[in-house]
Amino acid sequence: MHGNIIVGQSGGPTSVINSSLVGVYKTAKDRGAKKVYGMLHGIKGLLDDQYVDLSEHIKTDLDIDLLKRTPSSFLGSCRYKLPSISEGKEVYEKIFAKLKELDIEAFFYIGGNDSMDTIKKLSDYAILVDSNIKFMGVPKTIDNDLATTDHTPGYGSAAKYIAAVTKEIIRDGLVYDYPQFTIIEIMGRNAGWLTAAAALSKSEDCEGVDMIFLPEVPFDIDNFMEKVKELSKKKNSIVIAISEGIKVADGRYVFELADHVSFTDAFGHKQLSGSAKFLANKIGAELGVKTRAIELSTLQRSAAHMTSRVDITEAFQVGGAAVKAAFEGETGKVIVLERVSDDPYICITNSQDVRKIANIEKKVPVEWIINDNTYVSDELIHYIRPLIQAELSPVMVDGLPRHLKLNL
Amino acid sequence: MHGNIIVGQSGGPTSVINSSLVGVYKTAKDRGAKKVYGMLHGIKGLLDDQYVDLSEHIKTDLDIDLLKRTPSSFLGSCRYKLPSISEGKEVYEKIFAKLKELDIEAFFYIGGNDSMDTIKKLSDYAILVDSNIKFMGVPKTIDNDLATTDHTPGYGSAAKYIAAVTKEIIRDGLVYDYPQFTIIEIMGRNAGWLTAAAALSKSEDCEGVDMIFLPEVPFDIDNFMEKVKELSKKKNSIVIAISEGIKVADGRYVFELADHVSFTDAFGHKQLSGSAKFLANKIGAELGVKTRAIELSTLQRSAAHMTSRVDITEAFQVGGAAVKAAFEGETGKVIVLERVSDDPYICITNSQDVRKIANIEKKVPVEWIINDNTYVSDELIHYIRPLIQAELSPVMVDGLPRHLKLNL
Repeated sequence: MHGNIIVGQSGGPTSVINSSLVGVYKTAKDRGAKKVYGMLHGIKGLLDDQYVDLSEHIKTDLDIDLLKRTPSSFLGSCRYKLPSISEGKEVYEKIFAKLKELDIEAFFYIGGNDSMDTIKKLSDYAILVDSNIKFMGVPKTIDNDLATTDHTPGYGSAAKYIAAVTKEIIRDGLVYDYPQFTIIEIMGRNAGWLTAAAALSKSEDCEGVDMIFLPEVPFDIDNFMEKVKELSKKKNSIVIAISEGIKVADGRYVFELADHVSFTDAFGHKQLSGSAKFLANKIGAELGVKTRAIELSTLQRSAAHMTSRVDITEAFQVGGAAVKAAFEGETGKVIVLERVSDDPYICITNSQDVRKIANIEKKVPVEWIINDNTYVSDELIHYIRPLIQAELSPVMVDGLPRHLKLNL
Repeated sequence: MHGNIIVGQSGGPTSVINSSLVGVYKTAKDRGAKKVYGMLHGIKGLLDDQYVDLSEHIKTDLDIDLLKRTPSSFLGSCRYKLPSISEGKEVYEKIFAKLKELDIEAFFYIGGNDSMDTIKKLSDYAILVDSNIKFMGVPKTIDNDLATTDHTPGYGSAAKYIAAVTKEIIRDGLVYDYPQFTIIEIMGRNAGWLTAAAALSKSEDCEGVDMIFLPEVPFDIDNFMEKVKELSKKKNSIVIAISEGIKVADGRYVFELADHVSFTDAFGHKQLSGSAKFLANKIGAELGVKTRAIELSTLQRSAAHMTSRVDITEAFQVGGAAVKAAFEGETGKVIVLERVSDDPYICITNSQDVRKIANIEKKVPVEWIINDNTYVSDELIHYIRPLIQAELSPVMVDGLPRHLKLNL
């Protein structure tokens, strides 16, 4: 028998983040945890006494299977970053008082870089105050930018969605027999893993995208326009995938080259979109051809109707492995994925010091960016391919995918 | 036994237009047609001697099943409008000479309004020159704006895709606990059928979109902003569906209210997008909240990975029924769908004089637009619901949906 545990979700959603929640919940229950609490909107919810007893919300095996197929964080999320221990001692005292009140044995946080920072700080504080509460990180991000893990749950499904819809967009472009350019804008501020997934569209039945531009290398607009002109001489329909985060050599985002549109939101944050539109407009103006900009937007992180079975399974596994590790006494760790073999694809979980992963951004190796920075290498494609394999069919009710709803 | 037939696809693609092509091909073969020719890029291809013998491209039962699941016109498309007979006699002479050369018994054209106009003119010309070639129209359009048919193949799958991703977008919006607005821009220049499908997102597990704006009624921006402010007092995440074609009272499209961006493409055509972005920016500026504009873009017509089985089946049926009718001597007709019963949903095909459908645009009845023009009625939802039922799973190969490729 074990005591109570608590779990939260943080950062941007993915279409499989709830499979990790199920992994934590089910494994904890199976291993004799008493109560499994869920923080609403991450640690922010815990601080505001916003949490639920998950058993009251995941009641049946059907609920478990629906939750695995439910996109976007079931418990809600936050982007709250803990202060340093020296500067925010009272926040830590408050959190640990709450955890004591709930008689928590282990604390799980499903998230990306910022969330791993939270686990790091909480486990540091636990040492400081001699608490024996275990703190474990469960990795998730569509961006695949977490260090030391072979890849991150959430990425495989986003990659599969991107590759699948890119195939459909390419098909759509072939329908007319006049020249046209389509620019697909894909998420990824600093890391190009998601954009690289567009390369998977190339297959026996599809010639794939014509060029791919990642944020790891500077974007050269003159070179781009030259390549565009060459392509336009060879074929009618040209499809190009770009990362939302591509920047020119002087550090400006590509969309910032447009001079007539404000890209700052109400909070003064730069809105990271519009580069596809800018490039499409430029091509249209210079070549006199039809162009279209397509932003995949939030669907690439929430399209639970098109997930990878490998990804959903691994998302579950990292959640379960975190519980197993915590119950065996580990703390201040994050579960990582280790690829044992490429072919056949075999991947195992391991636990690792959270300090090795927190606040480090893993980017696409520049040697995997080829053809004068306009495409990605076979190594990169072989790396991604196993992660998009197989499906978990949505549960369709009255014609639409059914999700599990949190009723508060 | 029958002679040769020829089939073409015209206008914008849908994700099930190839199921109609299969319906024509398979029914013609089953009923003893000799050769089934396919025009490449519609009638334009026929004029340029661009056509194929479909038996060389659809060889196996697997090919047939792949083709049903292949988005975007397999044979390519065109937007070529035939001249009037009096003005373009030589075009008609050329077409009929080609048809005679190929020994064509019946001519099938899968398309929307413009394509039905083509069938009308060709069958008129056949009467004029005493030709006994049969001309039949097979309806398709995601816009559902064809007259006299209960609905149009292509619409159900687009509606299903829109409803499914709207559910996912709504979920995505719930993740943070701060105010935000998402505006989804959906296709439909003059008819709001597609945008109305966003209403289907409302279900036991989803509260649905907050407002829906169709192009059938004038868009009142002051009223819109007032409603937006009311909503922002009640809840955090607000999702609004708008048609790309919404116009203010003086006839300008909503995106034309923006004064700093050019929306004209290289051909001088107005590009019909940007209204969501304009409204999102306006809300962001006036309310100081986070906003996001999502254009569903070409995916709503090409997302073959999320189709309606009812739609795919009906698309096949209208193709097959056109062949049956032509082989029984009908000409100058279009196949329409007649709803016999709503519950249980039963729909049959019928043939109708193409004059009754060509060049007429069917819009959403204004009495189905309710709540001060901000939502759609239950009648409209009941009308759409049967059309999105059931699935035809994609054939997944190496992690991605497989399509049939035309190898020329």
